[in-house]
Amino acid sequence: MLPTTDRLLLGPGPSPVSKRVLASLTTPMRSHLDPDLLAMMDDMRERLARAFHAPEGSLCFAVSGTGSSGMEAVVANLAGPGKHAVAVVNGYFGDRLASMLSRYGATVTRVDGEWGKAIDPAAVGRAIEAGPCDLVAVVHAETSTGVRNPIEAISRTARANDALTIVDAVTSLGAMPLDLTAAGIDAAYSCSQKGLGAPSGLAPVAFTPRAIERRVPCRSFYFDLGLLEDYWVRRKYHHTISAPLIYALHTALTEVEEEGLKSRWHRHEAVHHGLVEALERLSLSLLPPDADRLWSLNAVRVPDGTDEAAVRKHLLQRHNIEIGAGLGPLAGKIWRIGLMGSGATIENVVRVTQALGDART
Amino acid sequence: MLPTTDRLLLGPGPSPVSKRVLASLTTPMRSHLDPDLLAMMDDMRERLARAFHAPEGSLCFAVSGTGSSGMEAVVANLAGPGKHAVAVVNGYFGDRLASMLSRYGATVTRVDGEWGKAIDPAAVGRAIEAGPCDLVAVVHAETSTGVRNPIEAISRTARANDALTIVDAVTSLGAMPLDLTAAGIDAAYSCSQKGLGAPSGLAPVAFTPRAIERRVPCRSFYFDLGLLEDYWVRRKYHHTISAPLIYALHTALTEVEEEGLKSRWHRHEAVHHGLVEALERLSLSLLPPDADRLWSLNAVRVPDGTDEAAVRKHLLQRHNIEIGAGLGPLAGKIWRIGLMGSGATIENVVRVTQALGDART
Repeated sequence: MLPTTDRLLLGPGPSPVSKRVLASLTTPMRSHLDPDLLAMMDDMRERLARAFHAPEGSLCFAVSGTGSSGMEAVVANLAGPGKHAVAVVNGYFGDRLASMLSRYGATVTRVDGEWGKAIDPAAVGRAIEAGPCDLVAVVHAETSTGVRNPIEAISRTARANDALTIVDAVTSLGAMPLDLTAAGIDAAYSCSQKGLGAPSGLAPVAFTPRAIERRVPCRSFYFDLGLLEDYWVRRKYHHTISAPLIYALHTALTEVEEEGLKSRWHRHEAVHHGLVEALERLSLSLLPPDADRLWSLNAVRVPDGTDEAAVRKHLLQRHNIEIGAGLGPLAGKIWRIGLMGSGATIENVVRVTQALGDART
Repeated sequence: MLPTTDRLLLGPGPSPVSKRVLASLTTPMRSHLDPDLLAMMDDMRERLARAFHAPEGSLCFAVSGTGSSGMEAVVANLAGPGKHAVAVVNGYFGDRLASMLSRYGATVTRVDGEWGKAIDPAAVGRAIEAGPCDLVAVVHAETSTGVRNPIEAISRTARANDALTIVDAVTSLGAMPLDLTAAGIDAAYSCSQKGLGAPSGLAPVAFTPRAIERRVPCRSFYFDLGLLEDYWVRRKYHHTISAPLIYALHTALTEVEEEGLKSRWHRHEAVHHGLVEALERLSLSLLPPDADRLWSLNAVRVPDGTDEAAVRKHLLQRHNIEIGAGLGPLAGKIWRIGLMGSGATIENVVRVTQALGDART
């Protein structure tokens, strides 16, 4: 019952894993407290700090779960009863972030924006300034719409008003320019299976010194920053981390550093533009305006009269290519084409656009 | 930096994975919503229900995290403010369970017992009957002490008093007799990396109809039973499950069913007795009394005057064998030797006892 055929993963993630990353999964097993594994985890903390461009003194590690567990780990340690948060909601994951802040007891002011456009930082600024505001939460790369939000402008206002900025970097880390230090971001989380090119199952997180200082008592045990720090830094047992996932993420981060972060961002940019041109030749266009677009995830408008599900099914069954459907209000209205990690190649642009052309004739 | 040498994992878990399970990790990747993966997940729900002997109508699936995430998922959906819980604490994991119930807002009555002995069910019964009591939480196989607790006797009193029984089956599932239906257990959780023989990273859970009926609003997003059911049953996106971990656990469950659960239990029993005899020849004894012992995890007393850490280091460095240290009040006083999953073999008994003999001469 295990799949035997290859599938080209060009949806919203997971992205394809390289042969080297895949092979690393079968590295001889180690336990969660083995000196070999702990040494790799030390190394991973440094690599993640470099990937995030986290300021000196930050705590960077990977939560044992998917990207959503990273979101919950950041929220659970920074938001709580008595805290006021401003949450940017112009997509599915902004909405998830806002609702998670509420679940953890924060009072949340939502700044809603159109799905498919970047949020207006002035609107966020007004909500912050209306106060009180302890936290501002914003999705950098909105996977549901293919939109990049202006995190720098938002964090400037947040910091001027003494609030922390939390950023969802699930679809940006490793694929799009991200620099927590330069952008003044206080905490961020991501996933292993998109820009970094590993399988899912680990969620890189970064807590800067400013965030660590303002953390709240964490109601969750699994996501408790103090206990996670005990394990990752002081090597005190907390949970049985998955060695194969550490091997794969470590190998993926090696590939990221061999390529160089900037080169990797440029590759994603170039491939994104290649896709846009190829789509234009098929008379297909992207939902977000030019300036707001992600390079990693492309929201393609479904032309009127096209059965979008039939096209995805055709790609999957005839071409072994996966692309994603729209979420929430964009269901049926867009396809989501991810060109991320090792999947961001011109060859994949050609394959997916040929398959799309084929599906529509 | 990836490890290149084999390590024999005879600690408290992870247990060794078979060649077949290891190889399954490199099965061609699928996304979390791919029809191939969803079909495997459907199959896995049934296999887990059989492994747990869960009653008809139970919801069995795997949480995307380690065993502790399974603990938190069960607690987060059954315990909350206003709920009264009786928690059995005669080991490290009983203590963790009690503290997790408190974190989620339940009022907890702890029934403390000696570390290294099974709890007296009459003491638990008295705490339940003293009431109010909505939940009784008990660790079946206490990994920190090598002790099996009398879950059947406890659940009988719980049910007679209209309380739910939650069982930690982290070190029993797949290795020790466990039958949720016969034992009247309402919810249970386990891990992938012990008796089942897969790598860590997934936590099998079982919610019986009686537990589902009494669930509480869940504060966590990642562990919300309703959202997890939406994904596992109704195929609505919640998180990006890790395909390699599904492949490995699915393959491990195939091996469990090929061997047969009862045969597998008997193998663990026979190997445990083989270890006890071999240890006796080295004048080493187990902490728990005969009747209370686990087959999967053996708590071996460190003889007076022996440097326990030096022995573990010798085993690791000279023999490439990992055994575990004691936790909490048993630190320095016991070694923990796990013979679980594919690691439960007489060959491994010979290897570990020869190495122990060698270390002490």
